[in-house]
Amino acid sequence: MNGCDHLVKAAVLTAPNQPIEVQEFPRPEKLEDGAALLKVDLAGICGTDIHLWHGRLKIPYPVIPGHETVGTLEEMGKGLEKDLLGKPLSVGDRIYFASGVDCGRCYYCQIAKEQTRCINRKVYGITLSCKSPPYLFGGHSEYVYLLPKAYLFRVPEDLPTESLVSVGCAAPTIIHGIEVVGVEAGDSVAIQGAGPIGLFALALAKESGASTTVVIDSVKERLEVAREMGADFLINTNDAISPQERVQRVLDLTDGIGADVVLECTGSPNALDDGLLMCRDSGRYLVVGHFTDRGTTAVNPHLITRKQLKIYGSWGMAPRHYYKALKILRTIHRKYHFEKLITHTFSIEKAQEAFETVENRKAVKAVFKP
Amino acid sequence: MNGCDHLVKAAVLTAPNQPIEVQEFPRPEKLEDGAALLKVDLAGICGTDIHLWHGRLKIPYPVIPGHETVGTLEEMGKGLEKDLLGKPLSVGDRIYFASGVDCGRCYYCQIAKEQTRCINRKVYGITLSCKSPPYLFGGHSEYVYLLPKAYLFRVPEDLPTESLVSVGCAAPTIIHGIEVVGVEAGDSVAIQGAGPIGLFALALAKESGASTTVVIDSVKERLEVAREMGADFLINTNDAISPQERVQRVLDLTDGIGADVVLECTGSPNALDDGLLMCRDSGRYLVVGHFTDRGTTAVNPHLITRKQLKIYGSWGMAPRHYYKALKILRTIHRKYHFEKLITHTFSIEKAQEAFETVENRKAVKAVFKP
Amino acid sequence: MNGCDHLVKAAVLTAPNQPIEVQEFPRPEKLEDGAALLKVDLAGICGTDIHLWHGRLKIPYPVIPGHETVGTLEEMGKGLEKDLLGKPLSVGDRIYFASGVDCGRCYYCQIAKEQTRCINRKVYGITLSCKSPPYLFGGHSEYVYLLPKAYLFRVPEDLPTESLVSVGCAAPTIIHGIEVVGVEAGDSVAIQGAGPIGLFALALAKESGASTTVVIDSVKERLEVAREMGADFLINTNDAISPQERVQRVLDLTDGIGADVVLECTGSPNALDDGLLMCRDSGRYLVVGHFTDRGTTAVNPHLITRKQLKIYGSWGMAPRHYYKALKILRTIHRKYHFEKLITHTFSIEKAQEAFETVENRKAVKAVFKP
Amino acid sequence: MNGCDHLVKAAVLTAPNQPIEVQEFPRPEKLEDGAALLKVDLAGICGTDIHLWHGRLKIPYPVIPGHETVGTLEEMGKGLEKDLLGKPLSVGDRIYFASGVDCGRCYYCQIAKEQTRCINRKVYGITLSCKSPPYLFGGHSEYVYLLPKAYLFRVPEDLPTESLVSVGCAAPTIIHGIEVVGVEAGDSVAIQGAGPIGLFALALAKESGASTTVVIDSVKERLEVAREMGADFLINTNDAISPQERVQRVLDLTDGIGADVVLECTGSPNALDDGLLMCRDSGRYLVVGHFTDRGTTAVNPHLITRKQLKIYGSWGMAPRHYYKALKILRTIHRKYHFEKLITHTFSIEKAQEAFETVENRKAVKAVFKP
Ligand SMILES: [Zn+2]
Ligand SMILES: [Zn+2]
Ligand SMILES: [Zn+2]
Ligand SMILES: [Zn+2]
Ligand SMILES: [Zn+2]
Ligand SMILES: [Zn+2]
Ligand SMILES: [Zn+2]
Ligand SMILES: [Zn+2]
Repeated sequence: MNGCDHLVKAAVLTAPNQPIEVQEFPRPEKLEDGAALLKVDLAGICGTDIHLWHGRLKIPYPVIPGHETVGTLEEMGKGLEKDLLGKPLSVGDRIYFASGVDCGRCYYCQIAKEQTRCINRKVYGITLSCKSPPYLFGGHSEYVYLLPKAYLFRVPEDLPTESLVSVGCAAPTIIHGIEVVGVEAGDSVAIQGAGPIGLFALALAKESGASTTVVIDSVKERLEVAREMGADFLINTNDAISPQERVQRVLDLTDGIGADVVLECTGSPNALDDGLLMCRDSGRYLVVGHFTDRGTTAVNPHLITRKQLKIYGSWGMAPRHYYKALKILRTIHRKYHFEKLITHTFSIEKAQEAFETVENRKAVKAVFKP
Repeated sequence: MNGCDHLVKAAVLTAPNQPIEVQEFPRPEKLEDGAALLKVDLAGICGTDIHLWHGRLKIPYPVIPGHETVGTLEEMGKGLEKDLLGKPLSVGDRIYFASGVDCGRCYYCQIAKEQTRCINRKVYGITLSCKSPPYLFGGHSEYVYLLPKAYLFRVPEDLPTESLVSVGCAAPTIIHGIEVVGVEAGDSVAIQGAGPIGLFALALAKESGASTTVVIDSVKERLEVAREMGADFLINTNDAISPQERVQRVLDLTDGIGADVVLECTGSPNALDDGLLMCRDSGRYLVVGHFTDRGTTAVNPHLITRKQLKIYGSWGMAPRHYYKALKILRTIHRKYHFEKLITHTFSIEKAQEAFETVENRKAVKAVFKP
Repeated sequence: MNGCDHLVKAAVLTAPNQPIEVQEFPRPEKLEDGAALLKVDLAGICGTDIHLWHGRLKIPYPVIPGHETVGTLEEMGKGLEKDLLGKPLSVGDRIYFASGVDCGRCYYCQIAKEQTRCINRKVYGITLSCKSPPYLFGGHSEYVYLLPKAYLFRVPEDLPTESLVSVGCAAPTIIHGIEVVGVEAGDSVAIQGAGPIGLFALALAKESGASTTVVIDSVKERLEVAREMGADFLINTNDAISPQERVQRVLDLTDGIGADVVLECTGSPNALDDGLLMCRDSGRYLVVGHFTDRGTTAVNPHLITRKQLKIYGSWGMAPRHYYKALKILRTIHRKYHFEKLITHTFSIEKAQEAFETVENRKAVKAVFKP
Repeated sequence: MNGCDHLVKAAVLTAPNQPIEVQEFPRPEKLEDGAALLKVDLAGICGTDIHLWHGRLKIPYPVIPGHETVGTLEEMGKGLEKDLLGKPLSVGDRIYFASGVDCGRCYYCQIAKEQTRCINRKVYGITLSCKSPPYLFGGHSEYVYLLPKAYLFRVPEDLPTESLVSVGCAAPTIIHGIEVVGVEAGDSVAIQGAGPIGLFALALAKESGASTTVVIDSVKERLEVAREMGADFLINTNDAISPQERVQRVLDLTDGIGADVVLECTGSPNALDDGLLMCRDSGRYLVVGHFTDRGTTAVNPHLITRKQLKIYGSWGMAPRHYYKALKILRTIHRKYHFEKLITHTFSIEKAQEAFETVENRKAVKAVFKP
């Protein structure tokens, strides 16, 4: 393990709030049966990565971050022959994979059939440490090592890597969310927040037949992106309008009734105050953006009873949501030009700068191209 | 309209917080086409009646209260020939009827198919005034007048009047609620509150196949009734146990997982704090008891996202829930002895005493027998 | 309309298999309260009209056919002030209306909540006779008379009459069908039959997010229309391919798995033989096109059990499906150019020719423009 | 078991239609990591076993049959520490296990989330041969060997072995079926067939709140068992009644409407003819009994469209249905006395006689007690 072509550069979070280090790891010499080694082509940087950096989630430092990755299959462990759909795999294939791996044998995996709540869940780039071999469990690296039970998908030739990574974890996250809350042809859909989740939610709501879409955010540039993606109406919360006015605006845009579906993609607790009022009676509300604990908000249960609301939470994503991301993106990527969301591309060496760029909201989407 | 047998005694709410008056009204001489006149056999007094008395809901005073009524068909308007199920009606039939009447032509009636949110909804005993003829729109009266569009059901012979009135509006309310939230065979169900709604929820959860039922209340006597009805476990919140302990107790009773379904039947906003924690991940929570606005409670949206919860509101009931109440009660009334819930029976003249008895929680169920 | 301006020309089916007569009826002088008189702008001719002509459905001859109508509000009965969505109505408004009117009070209307199975259902242009005043119950006429309980919708200004009538009863029919069977983003959808129902099913499946659509028919011209509307794949059953090959073709187009959803829109019983095999295991099959009894086909129940299929029927449409048709068409009509489906326009006087044109499948869509 | 105590007696199907052999196999000396060895306490004989005997399903002969087994944990492979619910396992525990083992990694396991359609599914007692070590893959044996990925459940102390084995594979099968078709409180349920599946379906329908149950069969003794289990109505198809009369009888018992739910548990194709007519409009029909291919029946698609039916297939069962069987049986076994269904008990040596007894329908339920 000497000579520079056996070393792999990776960004490392060593402890909460420390500078991002660029470390070198040995390239795995021999893969376990069923494992895979990918050369990373493109790896997204996500808001969650910033949370990990600042210690807002408990993870086993040191960790190589990166859970939005497409790579090239460079080595295959014995027995790895097919992807999750049964398609043959060969060295050189472009690979997309589920960042989360469940155990398949706990109450949530087998009884409740809610894999994302698996009590033994591991997530590449988040809960797998780089303390011991084979180290390379995150996408912000030149290589990523996939354990035998990882869920791999061969990327169809007509789907560019940029289209997949640009929508990163937002795509499978919101595919899961909309699977839960449901959007049908003719529905009116209000979307709180025009970050990555909200923007992909907009695209998916439109593709699911939403006949009216309203996007609500405080950042003009994000709203502009929503407009380009085809949002029917925009509400800028900075335009001096009060919560009452915001709600009224949504009512006005929906024949005075309220939205059939409201998607909360801001992660801000008090977004619920407006959101529940924006729903029509018997409407559906998805609370999908609250991956970290940012505290409580005052909710009136009488509102839930009287309006007969349906409120759904949705956590993370399972392999089927990656599968659907591939199918859906292959169909729609040309229409929405998701690849244009990538405004910043970094080498691994510039990891610190990359993280700061994301933290300071200078990028729509930033990626590593190792 | 002279001679005492043409006068009808009824309890009247004249204005918020005034003594309950007993007034006399003329017995309707001629019915509109399709209308019906019932001689009241038994009419329940419900917590909502107390709210109406104290002005906690906006209603068109003066009002004859009473929305839980079984009566004998005494007169039939021209064209009234069948009940809602197409069964022929004759004078002398025992009649059960939906207290709420929807318009059938608004957005909620026709498009959203959520009749209980009809924007033109009228409710006997609540939103219909006794200011003008035919006056008799409430059950706390010797007679009740049903408008042409009322939904009537002939009561099956083998179903006693007491069995129906004892479970009053709680039965169709919770039948609606469980239609929304779902209870399947094998489910564990925790019920917050052992008032009329909670107790009927217990019976219905058991009949729907719940294999574990936990009832939570602060009143020993109510918990005793729950025990007699077959609750598997009871939690008395007065037994010096903290919210944490309450939640832990439910976890312990459900293999450490939490309840598949939690039914909030207390109407107390902060019941949600415990309730959401008592649900297992991806569990279902029904907020059914919040018919009046009793303020807010602090909810953490992260909990909804992370636990992937499903939270449902359910308001009132539609004719189909009365239909199901008849079917279900006919099957189960002998097993649960609901008639024993009636601990106090009053004449109309004793209306003031009756309302005070209910207000002071001295009765399990109080009824008028005019 | 010259000569006596109190006479209304209408096409009349006098008895099974008789020539279509053009008769004159008195223009209603005074409307009942709540009724409406529309001057017909455009009225579609549907396959069902041909069935009525040939006596394949029992109807109360004589009947003015026509159940796909848009007209201009010419007179309003007292009390008619708003459409079903609560929008104010005035003379001159363009009106779209539900051809079916349910009773709102039978088991299917109130208990099962399946209006299309109302036991007292009336359908304009089908089950209402023109034997007695006000006669004008069908759209193939200069005027149509809407009874007080009809469900009216004001047509939005930006939705052309042609866009609505071109998709006729097919639009609400398949909106209902897809409400029942469900199509989600990423689904693969196979459509048997490229007639009006199949073609609108194609558009709606695509709008609901189908990522793969396969249309199967024996008529080259219809398949061409499907291609123009964006079908991903076409199968011409006349291309000497066997049923086995047809099924295999669908499997090949869906990764060897079968379609997530198959929509049977041919009305031919033996379409089920292929259709059930085209579904993937646990797939969904909609039997929507079988409005007349064309006999049986051999089905193997083992297939249903082993493949764990879900098979749904869907009959007619309710007012909410007209509402959704308006919403959806307003969003998508520019994209699909449905108005181009109208290949033949007739005056009422040419009714016989019009019906023959439809019967002989010379038209994609034929309409009356009185 | 005398002589060599390292030999295990087991019934073996050597080839289609051959006598059942009793063979001896070596007791496994060392278990793989994660595997388990059970001493069989009780093993049911099911109709499927008779099909296997007669070669009606393709299986890898020789096979030790038996897929309804409860045994005592005698040896544990390294790493086997907990059951599927996370409960600690020790030698001496009573064990219930899922006969089917899925791969967890195919399209049906991960994408469609329909484990019972896993393309790599293995079933103990059916698809696992006893040709090579460790041989013991069926329950009709003194010991059964469970591979590392088997799904084990520790049986609760208060649930007798007889209660579990008496309802054999019928319990998880119909738990799956009713999960799919749904039965709610107040539903009327007609059950075609009073064999093991039909009888457990009756119990589960009642426990799920069915207010009217009708059981249809041609065998008087089976109907008697249904009556004892609480069926509300029985129809003996041998009582000279025609199919029309059978259907009419069900309509009469359901207010002239038809059953909300019909469960087909006969496995006879032409049962569908009656069954679809017994459903009310928009009713639900479960085709659960057709595990072998017994040919086709004539179905009229117009019936499916016009009646707006929902028809569901359900194949086999997944681990969660075993889990629910444990929960449900623990709650209800005392009420239904399922253990009394066991009318015949055999030693392994009497395998031939046991199979003949089941084939000749002399037993309600026959079991091996090795
Ligand atoms: Zn797990
Ligand atoms: Zn992310
Ligand atoms: Zn209404
Ligand atoms: Zn009440
Ligand atoms: Zn038509
Ligand atoms: Zn009706
Ligand atoms: Zn079996
Ligand atoms: Zn599998």
